[in-house]
Amino acid sequence: MKTNRLEAFSDGVLAIIITIMVLELKTPEEVTIEALVPLLPVFVSYFISFIYLGIYWNNHHHLFQITEKVNGKVLWANLNLLFWLSLIPFATSWVGENHLESGPVAFYGFILLMASIAYFILQTVIIKHHKEDFILRKAIGKDFKGKLSTALYIIGLAVSFINSWAAIACYIIVAILWIVPDKRIEQHINEA
Amino acid sequence: MKTNRLEAFSDGVLAIIITIMVLELKTPEEVTIEALVPLLPVFVSYFISFIYLGIYWNNHHHLFQITEKVNGKVLWANLNLLFWLSLIPFATSWVGENHLESGPVAFYGFILLMASIAYFILQTVIIKHHKEDFILRKAIGKDFKGKLSTALYIIGLAVSFINSWAAIACYIIVAILWIVPDKRIEQHINEA
Amino acid sequence: MKTNRLEAFSDGVLAIIITIMVLELKTPEEVTIEALVPLLPVFVSYFISFIYLGIYWNNHHHLFQITEKVNGKVLWANLNLLFWLSLIPFATSWVGENHLESGPVAFYGFILLMASIAYFILQTVIIKHHKEDFILRKAIGKDFKGKLSTALYIIGLAVSFINSWAAIACYIIVAILWIVPDKRIEQHINEA
Amino acid sequence: MKTNRLEAFSDGVLAIIITIMVLELKTPEEVTIEALVPLLPVFVSYFISFIYLGIYWNNHHHLFQITEKVNGKVLWANLNLLFWLSLIPFATSWVGENHLESGPVAFYGFILLMASIAYFILQTVIIKHHKEDFILRKAIGKDFKGKLSTALYIIGLAVSFINSWAAIACYIIVAILWIVPDKRIEQHINEA
Repeated sequence: MKTNRLEAFSDGVLAIIITIMVLELKTPEEVTIEALVPLLPVFVSYFISFIYLGIYWNNHHHLFQITEKVNGKVLWANLNLLFWLSLIPFATSWVGENHLESGPVAFYGFILLMASIAYFILQTVIIKHHKEDFILRKAIGKDFKGKLSTALYIIGLAVSFINSWAAIACYIIVAILWIVPDKRIEQHINEA
Repeated sequence: MKTNRLEAFSDGVLAIIITIMVLELKTPEEVTIEALVPLLPVFVSYFISFIYLGIYWNNHHHLFQITEKVNGKVLWANLNLLFWLSLIPFATSWVGENHLESGPVAFYGFILLMASIAYFILQTVIIKHHKEDFILRKAIGKDFKGKLSTALYIIGLAVSFINSWAAIACYIIVAILWIVPDKRIEQHINEA
Repeated sequence: MKTNRLEAFSDGVLAIIITIMVLELKTPEEVTIEALVPLLPVFVSYFISFIYLGIYWNNHHHLFQITEKVNGKVLWANLNLLFWLSLIPFATSWVGENHLESGPVAFYGFILLMASIAYFILQTVIIKHHKEDFILRKAIGKDFKGKLSTALYIIGLAVSFINSWAAIACYIIVAILWIVPDKRIEQHINEA
Repeated sequence: MKTNRLEAFSDGVLAIIITIMVLELKTPEEVTIEALVPLLPVFVSYFISFIYLGIYWNNHHHLFQITEKVNGKVLWANLNLLFWLSLIPFATSWVGENHLESGPVAFYGFILLMASIAYFILQTVIIKHHKEDFILRKAIGKDFKGKLSTALYIIGLAVSFINSWAAIACYIIVAILWIVPDKRIEQHINEA
């Protein structure tokens, strides 16, 4: 089976997830620019989630650029990833409406953690479905970046009950780690 | 006529159906993790519907992988399937908000039954539009799995008025039957 | 310029229009099957609009199957069509919530009329952008069906203030006229 | 990396942005045609935003028709553009609900300004990623039209606090400038 329809479906779901978050931005009653100030936390959480979903889309794009074929397991591993990403708008609006209280921030971290695990599973399933010399296998190596991210999410989750900002700092560090799409893949494509 | 645009449109509709269900997840007023507990039935029904729609997408994917051409009848049979699937978010939120009361559970089963009949019609119309040696014809055979599913939906519908959980058990058995994308098609693709 | 991206964008917009209508179906408070009865007019208007949008999608599909190239004018004529179709969910829910009162029914007819005019403009712009022997030119001929539809919409609009059901009958007759995708195009494709 | 998946994703996001604006059109309580009159400003602002998003889609379409390859920077520059465009529905409904008060009109202009800057960045990043003789470089030249638009948005923003209509006039002039998709690109495609 080819990858094109899986990509199209994932693009559709990601496009919708990234866009329906704006439905949470309720227009203020007043008509002054100051009326937008109370919306600021909602804007900020929308912005961060937009970047996170952008990162996932970029890496998904890179991942399937080198994937040659898919099977039933890959389809389900992909749907599992989309499931966790689909909960980001819910987590985002809970965080945004509550000015970064620890409960919602911890939940947000939990969703990010589950999404990163789902991405790891997807990668693993794809590698298993390909031959020994599959480019992705070399590109990822020991997947230090992936393991570091998971560790940071767990730390973020744990500290969120002590200090929301420390948790958010963890999530932002992970985002920075990944904001540059997987150079390892680009490199191996160029070498091949 | 080729199948690619029908696939793209179906992917779009399925991506939207699967994603708008999260709009039903209303953020709780409180900021504790416990505040998510009352949302649990909504989460569970979202999860089950996500899997169901995933199953339909996977099988739709397999189905059109071997379909060579479409005509007006296939377009309408496909729209009929999408129509019933588009009612799943409505049925899902009705079930989720009412902690699995028999009325909504029966309605949910009814929508699943209609969708499965629509899928059967789509299959039949596609087979009629192809030649005698069409791969799908052999792959499906007597379609034991399809008939068993329909029977289970009808049983589920009937028992839902006696016991919601028995009905849900029926729906879950059907899901398990189909969660592995149609091996029969994969097998015949490999043989061909 | 090629047609594929215009088709993809139109598919996306049509998929969303056809699907967001279900957001109008509000889950009833009660949990009995009877609680769905008051929703019946909403269901019926959703069903009719679904068929109408299905007809537009099918014919759009046929139209661009034979269109070889597009220019700026075709892009805008297509956006004009999408604009009017995007108002169908609004018109649908206004009709559905008000049990077919004459005001909403007339407005619904007005939107259908504008969409049909937009489709006619799109066809004309495409024909102008192609050569003399363009297949669409012959397929449409004097476009009797198109003119009849426009006439029926205008009649529907006019009678809606006297009798809603007579207006709805007009709209349904047009739907039946078009439910079979444009045979004229299929025929000319086969002949070519 | 090829452009097709970036185009598909952008098409998806733009299709959703352009369509979810209709969710702001709340059906009136009454059933007379006059009940639509108070909705007129909402309709008008929807119409203008639809045209603006149509312009962006058309120009995006033209831009990627000549783009041969993308890298990580192009992906992010594109996501940046989509981010600002995704705020248009919010700005639109704020303007529409408040009958063109200066606060919302200024905010609307700000979003348009940011989107135009994002488009400029995207163009620049694409040009940097291509060779000296890249067709886009010649087609754009000194980008007089782009600079004029930015100037008009800034003027619009400034005057919006004095007179909403003067601001709106500025925005409409920019729209008229761009409503014809980039002739410069079409010309250079034909010459090549």
